[in-house]
Amino acid sequence: PCSCSSLDQALPKFQCSELCWSYFVQCLNLKAGEAASGDQHDLCSKDGQKHMDYILTYSTKKLFSDLHPSLSLKEKTCCLSCCQPCARDQSLRKYHGGTQKQSLRSQEEEKVLCREEFEDNLKKMGLHLEKDESNRISGVGFLKIHAPWDILCREAEFLKLKMPTKEFYQATPQHKMRKLNAFFKRITAPLLPNVGDTETEDIKKVCYPFSREKLHFLIAHGVYTEAYPLHDCRTLTVNLFLQVLYREWASYSNFYKYQPISLIRKYFGEKIGLYFAWLGLYTQMLIFAAIVGVLVFLYGCITVDDDIPSMEICDKRNNITMCPLCDKSCSYWKLTMACGTARASHLFDSTATVLFSIFMALWAAMFMESWKRRQMRLNYMWDLTNFEEEEVSNEYFAALHAKAAKLTWRDRMPAYMTFIFLMTFAILFGVIIYRVTTQASLQMSSMPSIRANVRLTVKSTAVIINVVVILILDEVYSKIARWLTILEVPKTDKSFEQRLILKTFILKFLNAFSPIFYIAFIRGKTANTASSYGVLFKQSFSPQCAHTGCLMELCIQLSITMLGKQLIQNNLFEIGIPKLKKLIRRIKTKRAPVQEEQDDKDLKRYEADFFLEPFVSLNPEYMEMIIQFGFVTLFVASFPLAPLFALLNNVIEIRLDAKKFVAELRRPVAARAKDIGIWYNLLRGISKAAIIVNAFVIAFTSDFIPRLVYQYGYSPDGTMHGFINHTLSYFNVSHFQAETHPLQPLHLGYKVEVCRYKDYRMAPWSFNPYDISKVYWAILAGRLAFVIIFQNVVMLLSDFVDWVIPDIPKEIITRIYEEKMQMVEFFMREEHSLYSMPMLDNQDENRPTPQLRRS
Amino acid sequence: PCSCSSLDQALPKFQCSELCWSYFVQCLNLKAGEAASGDQHDLCSKDGQKHMDYILTYSTKKLFSDLHPSLSLKEKTCCLSCCQPCARDQSLRKYHGGTQKQSLRSQEEEKVLCREEFEDNLKKMGLHLEKDESNRISGVGFLKIHAPWDILCREAEFLKLKMPTKEFYQATPQHKMRKLNAFFKRITAPLLPNVGDTETEDIKKVCYPFSREKLHFLIAHGVYTEAYPLHDCRTLTVNLFLQVLYREWASYSNFYKYQPISLIRKYFGEKIGLYFAWLGLYTQMLIFAAIVGVLVFLYGCITVDDDIPSMEICDKRNNITMCPLCDKSCSYWKLTMACGTARASHLFDSTATVLFSIFMALWAAMFMESWKRRQMRLNYMWDLTNFEEEEVSNEYFAALHAKAAKLTWRDRMPAYMTFIFLMTFAILFGVIIYRVTTQASLQMSSMPSIRANVRLTVKSTAVIINVVVILILDEVYSKIARWLTILEVPKTDKSFEQRLILKTFILKFLNAFSPIFYIAFIRGKTANTASSYGVLFKQSFSPQCAHTGCLMELCIQLSITMLGKQLIQNNLFEIGIPKLKKLIRRIKTKRAPVQEEQDDKDLKRYEADFFLEPFVSLNPEYMEMIIQFGFVTLFVASFPLAPLFALLNNVIEIRLDAKKFVAELRRPVAARAKDIGIWYNLLRGISKAAIIVNAFVIAFTSDFIPRLVYQYGYSPDGTMHGFINHTLSYFNVSHFQAETHPLQPLHLGYKVEVCRYKDYRMAPWSFNPYDISKVYWAILAGRLAFVIIFQNVVMLLSDFVDWVIPDIPKEIITRIYEEKMQMVEFFMREEHSLYSMPMLDNQDENRPTPQLRRS
Repeated sequence: PCSCSSLDQALPKFQCSELCWSYFVQCLNLKAGEAASGDQHDLCSKDGQKHMDYILTYSTKKLFSDLHPSLSLKEKTCCLSCCQPCARDQSLRKYHGGTQKQSLRSQEEEKVLCREEFEDNLKKMGLHLEKDESNRISGVGFLKIHAPWDILCREAEFLKLKMPTKEFYQATPQHKMRKLNAFFKRITAPLLPNVGDTETEDIKKVCYPFSREKLHFLIAHGVYTEAYPLHDCRTLTVNLFLQVLYREWASYSNFYKYQPISLIRKYFGEKIGLYFAWLGLYTQMLIFAAIVGVLVFLYGCITVDDDIPSMEICDKRNNITMCPLCDKSCSYWKLTMACGTARASHLFDSTATVLFSIFMALWAAMFMESWKRRQMRLNYMWDLTNFEEEEVSNEYFAALHAKAAKLTWRDRMPAYMTFIFLMTFAILFGVIIYRVTTQASLQMSSMPSIRANVRLTVKSTAVIINVVVILILDEVYSKIARWLTILEVPKTDKSFEQRLILKTFILKFLNAFSPIFYIAFIRGKTANTASSYGVLFKQSFSPQCAHTGCLMELCIQLSITMLGKQLIQNNLFEIGIPKLKKLIRRIKTKRAPVQEEQDDKDLKRYEADFFLEPFVSLNPEYMEMIIQFGFVTLFVASFPLAPLFALLNNVIEIRLDAKKFVAELRRPVAARAKDIGIWYNLLRGISKAAIIVNAFVIAFTSDFIPRLVYQYGYSPDGTMHGFINHTLSYFNVSHFQAETHPLQPLHLGYKVEVCRYKDYRMAPWSFNPYDISKVYWAILAGRLAFVIIFQNVVMLLSDFVDWVIPDIPKEIITRIYEEKMQMVEFFMREEHSLYSMPMLDNQDENRPTPQLRRS
Repeated sequence: PCSCSSLDQALPKFQCSELCWSYFVQCLNLKAGEAASGDQHDLCSKDGQKHMDYILTYSTKKLFSDLHPSLSLKEKTCCLSCCQPCARDQSLRKYHGGTQKQSLRSQEEEKVLCREEFEDNLKKMGLHLEKDESNRISGVGFLKIHAPWDILCREAEFLKLKMPTKEFYQATPQHKMRKLNAFFKRITAPLLPNVGDTETEDIKKVCYPFSREKLHFLIAHGVYTEAYPLHDCRTLTVNLFLQVLYREWASYSNFYKYQPISLIRKYFGEKIGLYFAWLGLYTQMLIFAAIVGVLVFLYGCITVDDDIPSMEICDKRNNITMCPLCDKSCSYWKLTMACGTARASHLFDSTATVLFSIFMALWAAMFMESWKRRQMRLNYMWDLTNFEEEEVSNEYFAALHAKAAKLTWRDRMPAYMTFIFLMTFAILFGVIIYRVTTQASLQMSSMPSIRANVRLTVKSTAVIINVVVILILDEVYSKIARWLTILEVPKTDKSFEQRLILKTFILKFLNAFSPIFYIAFIRGKTANTASSYGVLFKQSFSPQCAHTGCLMELCIQLSITMLGKQLIQNNLFEIGIPKLKKLIRRIKTKRAPVQEEQDDKDLKRYEADFFLEPFVSLNPEYMEMIIQFGFVTLFVASFPLAPLFALLNNVIEIRLDAKKFVAELRRPVAARAKDIGIWYNLLRGISKAAIIVNAFVIAFTSDFIPRLVYQYGYSPDGTMHGFINHTLSYFNVSHFQAETHPLQPLHLGYKVEVCRYKDYRMAPWSFNPYDISKVYWAILAGRLAFVIIFQNVVMLLSDFVDWVIPDIPKEIITRIYEEKMQMVEFFMREEHSLYSMPMLDNQDENRPTPQLRRS
């Protein structure tokens, strides 16, 4: 009933069925190294001889026992290929709200036919198949697939996998470096995980690129239900990878050790190997940042008693009466009340903070460079230097392609518009949530019964509520981002993933950071620029920060958001939810939970793996880390302890992820990758943004510039004495507009005639009362100049770091070069020996190549 | 007398003589395509049969006729290899001022031995040699080398050159695009150069990487005197490359046509091909910039009569008396005198200029992206996608390596320090030269005899003198940069070149731009910030710009420097000097100039080529263009016509360079390259710097911000009326300090009591006379805010352009993918046909690969 024509149009060079073969064969998880060593250790398969490489499961409901026998051969042959157009129609229909008219029966029949032909083709390709429908898991049939050595070889050749021509390449370090290296090795020996010889970097084995999405078109439409490779199960082998990984990697007691990256890569593939290598390097780099951050904090602690401005605030002799912070309900207050906040602010806002911001910008540049180098080193070690990631247009999307090609910019408009609307919503909602919670806490704390000390507690509770809302929204946003990306109908897998990541990142980033940006740059700024204090108080509840600026509040918000996100996400989401899912899965499949424990021990490996959670994607892991990187770099000027918290989290995170991969998830299909892709760009973007954000935080949120301007421009004796008085303007109480008078004017016990407020304005008795003063403009110019200087100097320094540190380690360059020269020499010798043999004619000079390949 | 041991240590895996072979064979300019078509067209060689690929020349002075016959074989074998250690000692001794003690005689003997062994080794490699010592050029022996087809094949295999497996790959454009493409092709048909079928992009032939520096160690020490490949000379072939190039490329009448890039690449190699492709794209992109620039200039011309500030300056009713511009010798003047300059300034400083700056920043980003895409397209067309440039450590430097490895940072310190000193010198000297010339002109123009009209002429003359000095210094700096780079002893060719380019670039850039930066940002700024006008006038001859800011002077300096550099460098240096050198060369070699003309016609190709100037490097060409790019982008805010001048220059420059390469220079050795290397980074750096520089020029050099602040902050009616009055402060003449009174106070015919000057200061009758006013700080804040906004917005836009335009054209991605799929299909078919043959066992599955190679 359906034809291949639509597919043929898309890729005219392939016959329909060839396409299906050639793609499926790419789905196999080749393990050439293991295969080369012989198959004798494989005890998992039924016949006790063959090793299983891959599992497909399907539904074995007995719907189709009376399968129509008169189905012609022609229809049968066409079946597999027609899965695609059908699938496409189906998926398109979903989006357009149409209803599926084919009956369930005919669908199931079609699936059986597709399976038969597909399995036939697999056999033709040379794969060994084994079916298991009579197992203890009811309704699930298993198709076990084994790829023999010769098939693997042929595929390896197509993919231009590098074969190990020389088993050992011994790098000879230079004389001077050798001793240093040996010394360094002896020092770091206890840090190395104990995984035996597999960790040596000399022997290289072949690996294989795989894209899980390629199975979509069979699995997404129920021909098979699941597809997964098996966890390691050769109990006879000494180096049981899984056990070694479990012991040496996925255990909290190893938290201080390096990770066995090459083993991870061998077991899980390059893509996951790169993730853990990246996470490891990031954590390692965080150590330096954390140490410097703690030092900056300690410097603040030590100098807090020498800080003249906070001394002046705390000094009771300076009897300064401040104007109320809000309309009516607030009253006049004494500046000494702000003493505690002022001293706490100093911990995070000392001169060292500026230096720390510069340090962190350079740290970020250094981190990016180190990662580039590490990646290059891994590429060399893993023989990926010549590997090029193909932008293969996935056949699932290729089927949609015919439709997508017609999708103009206008058709996608709704998706784009929704996204823009969503972004605005995320920003506003983040700010609104923040304002609602703080307003509630402010109203509580302005009640006479709740005094200043409790205020911090109330505020913190508000922030915690805020964090919980953020976390819930996070999950919602990631769902919406996926939905929007599907609406856009991208053409390739890579494009799909990139669009999805970008959307999710933007939404989650706005969700996490919009309240923080609001506190840092908007709160308390709008009010202060109003033309006079009287008018200013008309805006009821314009949120004012405490006297010493918004830095303290920024700091509280940052620390609680960051800690809350990490604790809740790690504990609840990463541990709790997978366990819950596993439980649900088990309940769904088996209805007799009594036998469960007994069964668990008898389960074969492929049955046990069936109950594990499938591995979906690394994206959530990366996303979490990238947002954390944002916390570490973006506002580091206001919260120097962020790197420390991140470090503590990551040390746990690595082992947590390791446990998940080793014990909680099905073995992921090994995927080849050369780099971490779009994540690198996001990191780069964040570290660039961090420079500007920190420049603004220092210039506008902290008191750094006003102090500097006062000390060098206005101070009579060149010290900070008198700074507080300088920052406060005068207000004549009689100028209060109606309705804005404080309700309790006699709160302090005496009648106030002139109160003070924090702004640079003219005094009531001057020529232009309440007008912006010259000092204001001078300080503004100073702030802006600081932003320009800071931004450009730090950017220049970052670029300098980028330029000075070579992207490829020198050692790797020489090693690649020397390896190449060795190869040339080998070819030379081979050729000479060929020429010297008289019976060989000129035509045979190509021979040495295949001989080498076989060796 | 000398041993191989030192060399063996450096590269232990090679035997001494093997090193020499393998390197020399890399020096050959392979032309596989020509060789494949048969050697029958080669008429240049003596025997009329073999084609010559490469020429080595040596000195044939009869010094060594009584060569010592008792030299043992062992000594002889070692000779070639010992050239290197000796050479090293020699070159090192040069730097350390030691004297060469070996006699000239023994040196010559050594060279003959080296040549003999070297030629022996070449023969062993399979190369065909032919000597010609009895020619008309006395004292010069020619060694003609021919590489046979099989040798080329073997080398091609080592270098993994792509062989043409399918002669044709026809790209099938999409339906919609096809029509558009056809239409576009018809339109652009007259722009295409008429070079026949060689221009079709379907047939690909192999090419070859070569590094000229590899011959250094033989040539630098006189074993051979020169080495060069020959220009095209097969008169029988129809497609004589050289003639086609001469007719279709190296002619001014083709100035409006595209260049025949693929032909250039075939004849000169990828490296030179890329240069001309880049130059072509740059020129093409300049067309847009030039058009917009001219429009901006025209907008200025049209609106000059509506410009209120210049109307106010020119209005005689505003009888404003200005303070003198310098001490004593200057006197009071009328503001209406500045009328002409104010009107001229408006041409370059209208609101459109700001938009034009943003446009140019985006233009630069667009240009970089377009180049990336063009480069990628060329890489695909030229089969370079898999080619990786090796960081080969040249054996000449490798010989120095043993010494260089010991060179610590401290040893190189003098070189670095010299460079830093030189940079400072370049900056200071540039500024001093400028100041001396302008001061001279200022003194002349302040003489009563020379009046305002002549002033501009005098000033322009000063700038021209300045340009000449810059040009002379340019040559000096490039010599010094080379000398400094040699002092640093870099380890590889690539590193040498990069260091050299970077040094030369920095020095030339500072040389060209330091006076311009001085005018834009320093001149007139230092003086105005002094605390009072009286004190200010103590600094005699503090150079003041005219009333309307320094923009006009910046514009004059820019235009004359740019035009002068282009005209003088093009005409004098690029045409004149090569001709002069050729003449000198001819005079040196031949002593009988009478026969010259007769001889010229009889000269064989290799003799004629001998008299041509050797090709040194593309660096001067690139350097000239990069500096020009600086003029086009860096100060475009003050000189919108820069792109137009650059465009006019480049249209000529392309054909000039073409003529040089085709007729004036020896044929360069074809070198393979994937990109334009460090030049791309320099371009990127300049376009980034341009954003910041333009932001500062608009904010601080032009009057854009003060006008904006006046219009929206201070103007009584929201228009620009009264702006001029607002910018001028008052000065009480009685406050002049002693010795600073103008000598001719009655110059204007009446007694001046209060004069005006351009600054934002308090009036003499205010509370703080001559203090900086609030407006000053407000405008400063506005200027700084503009810089921040402009810089970040434009940088964001640039990054956006970078992100939106994919680096690799979509078309190329699909073409690469489809080509690959075609290949896979072919392999599949081949393999199936092999499996179907029963007599072949499993071991033979590797066969198809070599078969394919041969096809």
